Amino acid sequence: MSTTSPVAPCDFVVFGGTGDLTVRKLLPALYLRDRDDQLPTDTRIIAVSRSGLDTAGYRDKMRGELGRFVATESLDEAVLDRFLRRLEFVYLDATDHSTWEPLTTLLQEDADRIRVYYLACAPRLFGPISENLAAHGLVDRSSRVVLEKPIGHDLASAREINDAVGQVFEESQIFRIDHYLGKESVQNLLVTRFANSVLEPLWNSTCIDHVQITVSEELGVGARGEYYDTSGALRDMIQNHLLQVLCLVAMEPPTYVDRESVRDEKLKVLQALKPMTTEDAERDAVAGQYGPGLVNGAAVPGYKEEANNPDSRTETFVALKAEVRNWRWAGVPFYLRTGKRMERRHSEVVIAFKPVPHPMFPGSQGTSEPNRLVIQLQPKEGMRLHMTAKEPGPGGIRLRPVSLDLNYTEAFQLPSPDAYERLLMDVVRGNPTLFMRRDEVEAAWTWVEPILNSWAGSERAPRRYPAGTDGPSDAATLIERDGRTWNEGAHP
Amino acid sequence: MSTTSPVAPCDFVVFGGTGDLTVRKLLPALYLRDRDDQLPTDTRIIAVSRSGLDTAGYRDKMRGELGRFVATESLDEAVLDRFLRRLEFVYLDATDHSTWEPLTTLLQEDADRIRVYYLACAPRLFGPISENLAAHGLVDRSSRVVLEKPIGHDLASAREINDAVGQVFEESQIFRIDHYLGKESVQNLLVTRFANSVLEPLWNSTCIDHVQITVSEELGVGARGEYYDTSGALRDMIQNHLLQVLCLVAMEPPTYVDRESVRDEKLKVLQALKPMTTEDAERDAVAGQYGPGLVNGAAVPGYKEEANNPDSRTETFVALKAEVRNWRWAGVPFYLRTGKRMERRHSEVVIAFKPVPHPMFPGSQGTSEPNRLVIQLQPKEGMRLHMTAKEPGPGGIRLRPVSLDLNYTEAFQLPSPDAYERLLMDVVRGNPTLFMRRDEVEAAWTWVEPILNSWAGSERAPRRYPAGTDGPSDAATLIERDGRTWNEGAHP
Repeated sequence: MSTTSPVAPCDFVVFGGTGDLTVRKLLPALYLRDRDDQLPTDTRIIAVSRSGLDTAGYRDKMRGELGRFVATESLDEAVLDRFLRRLEFVYLDATDHSTWEPLTTLLQEDADRIRVYYLACAPRLFGPISENLAAHGLVDRSSRVVLEKPIGHDLASAREINDAVGQVFEESQIFRIDHYLGKESVQNLLVTRFANSVLEPLWNSTCIDHVQITVSEELGVGARGEYYDTSGALRDMIQNHLLQVLCLVAMEPPTYVDRESVRDEKLKVLQALKPMTTEDAERDAVAGQYGPGLVNGAAVPGYKEEANNPDSRTETFVALKAEVRNWRWAGVPFYLRTGKRMERRHSEVVIAFKPVPHPMFPGSQGTSEPNRLVIQLQPKEGMRLHMTAKEPGPGGIRLRPVSLDLNYTEAFQLPSPDAYERLLMDVVRGNPTLFMRRDEVEAAWTWVEPILNSWAGSERAPRRYPAGTDGPSDAATLIERDGRTWNEGAHP
Repeated sequence: MSTTSPVAPCDFVVFGGTGDLTVRKLLPALYLRDRDDQLPTDTRIIAVSRSGLDTAGYRDKMRGELGRFVATESLDEAVLDRFLRRLEFVYLDATDHSTWEPLTTLLQEDADRIRVYYLACAPRLFGPISENLAAHGLVDRSSRVVLEKPIGHDLASAREINDAVGQVFEESQIFRIDHYLGKESVQNLLVTRFANSVLEPLWNSTCIDHVQITVSEELGVGARGEYYDTSGALRDMIQNHLLQVLCLVAMEPPTYVDRESVRDEKLKVLQALKPMTTEDAERDAVAGQYGPGLVNGAAVPGYKEEANNPDSRTETFVALKAEVRNWRWAGVPFYLRTGKRMERRHSEVVIAFKPVPHPMFPGSQGTSEPNRLVIQLQPKEGMRLHMTAKEPGPGGIRLRPVSLDLNYTEAFQLPSPDAYERLLMDVVRGNPTLFMRRDEVEAAWTWVEPILNSWAGSERAPRRYPAGTDGPSDAATLIERDGRTWNEGAHP
């Protein structure tokens, strides 16, 4: 196992303690940190919810859920017992002042310890919960609050939430989580760029032709249909995850990779994004929505059916072309693409280098394809540098593609922890480097909003694509009219 | 199999037709080209020697030798029969004019075809053989002569040989063979550098700290002891093989990779090598000689015993530091190292990049080792880029070395042909790109000669190293006093 050191004792309070995120992600992550002895004995996990449960019932239920959502090889009865003893369940209605007494009493048992308030609930409750926490004297300098996405549905609503939470918590206490930033491969983008000397000289518009960022999901919206129908892929994926990845690819080297420097540099990238006019958005942003289709040979319904909204114009797919207007990147398109119900689950960053300036092998067979560095984010984390080599043979020169490969799991023989494991520990440690600062979130909304507005004002519905394909043909056209193609060769 | 097209019919005349090189390398290479249908039906191979054999006896003997020196899976009885029928044996004493009649008669049977004269004999015979060929009317515009190393033992003797052969053959007809240039991995140096856009921006003194070229052999001098004792590693390996590899690493991009452009650029590198004064040579060139030792657990004798010369001061190991004085490379040392009876057979080029200019991960464990691109020449051909990545784990940042790997055999699933296979076909095709031009050979001698002179004038004998080790400690000191180390991590 990799070395880990225990974090300080804390009370970990989860609003939405019986919700999907808590059950599937937060508790399994905390269990795994407990297993690695990272949680001190007296660390408590307090689940807050309107469910009709008590602590015994909650522990019982969670024993079953952890059995489902923790990998079997990581389950250990003794650790599980220890972990379940940390759990407390408290009934609370966030907006009903009169229900806050039990939580207040519980937390005041040890008023000195770090309190982490994890708001795994609807964003409209972020403000009221913060106010109530303050009103009950539950916020001090060592308290932190974690906000799950979405932070609003546009710039104004994001500001409203940030204002309300900001009334109670200092910005340094607010942890806006984007689990993409907790992924090993995404963090490794920083290490790859800044712990190696061979990339920086190539990392600019002189050497790079364009960048592609793809996050494709095989799943549809499933049970999330009702919520998703008010959001869509631009808000749900581009505004946060893909723009954050773009920032890590494009940012200038900070002085140090520490709490404010990285976020300062990411902000500069967001601010350098060329704003989209309505005309730009029509040309450079493609919305798609999946219809019925085949995924792994099985028929699946279309989005409208899943969302139970036959008139839905919500996009489940976005492809767009962005540009970072600064010295390093001017003229280098960043093509972003994300969708649900795609052919396969696959996320990657492709750094497409320029072709060789001059073909130097007269009479050679084959061509020297432009080099590509493909950073695979999921499902497998790895890196592949596509190059050209000479095919062995006793006559002439035959140019052939080859690749230099790195597979993290093979390289380290260590499992990659889930993004939440790292991020939750960072919250307790008070390290916000991998969380989004207010100005970043608002800068991202500022850039995304004109695209939303353009689509809202358009007569045109999202382009339909059959489930199980790689999106609408307009997405291919978007990049092909620039003489480029989406990277499709990287099937693992 | 890779595609090959037949070469023109020719008479392939080997002087030294019963010698070691002919038996071990030339005939197996020609056999394999025959197997791939690259030799037209009427191509003849005429072995010339003072041995008391006739054609039938020679064919018989070579049937046995090919059985030893061609890999079993490549042996095919039908091809072997066909190949042996091409062989003719002719008795000839190169310096005895009266013995040239039979060869002359044989070659005049078809005076129009290409004649390749392969001089696999002592260099002192290169001049006399050329004269006799001319005197007997056996040289025309389509004739070519192949000269095996050594082309002399110093600049003056090299010039003498070049002058003598140049009296008879045009420079374009003279193929000075350096089998290193025929190795797939060495040719691939050109393709790697010039068919990829990501390397050229890094390929200079701004990004590269130093270069290492190592050719280490496990074998001792064995039966070659008597010859070797007049030569040594500097003449036998550095003057040709290692300097040629250095040229391919350091050369400017030619306009095209074709016959004269590559050689023009290599010549410029040789001419840019900083000349060594006697003082420089004492400091920057280390000679070594192996003593008795253990190789793979077995006791082996020392060099003096193998060479049967208890007073020998011939070096079997050289390490030196060279510098290419031009815009691209000023200040970048090229460390060269070659030796016999080393720990293992292993040849590689190491491009050691500069460290990151600034450590950006405060509090991280591990360090970011400078990137290294290791191009393996033998025994396995491949490429490995050493980088730094983040070790997976939920807390802090741990920097760890990782590598991106390329193995040619795995990548292509094609056997790499022997260097001689390619080079012999290039001779017939009249393509001299991978052969050394006169000016290159002489420029290499010009650079090497002061080192030879310095050693000859020194009281100090070569530093002794036990067989089966990686050379004398002075070789380590040579690089370590610059704060660098030999690349030793690349055990396959």
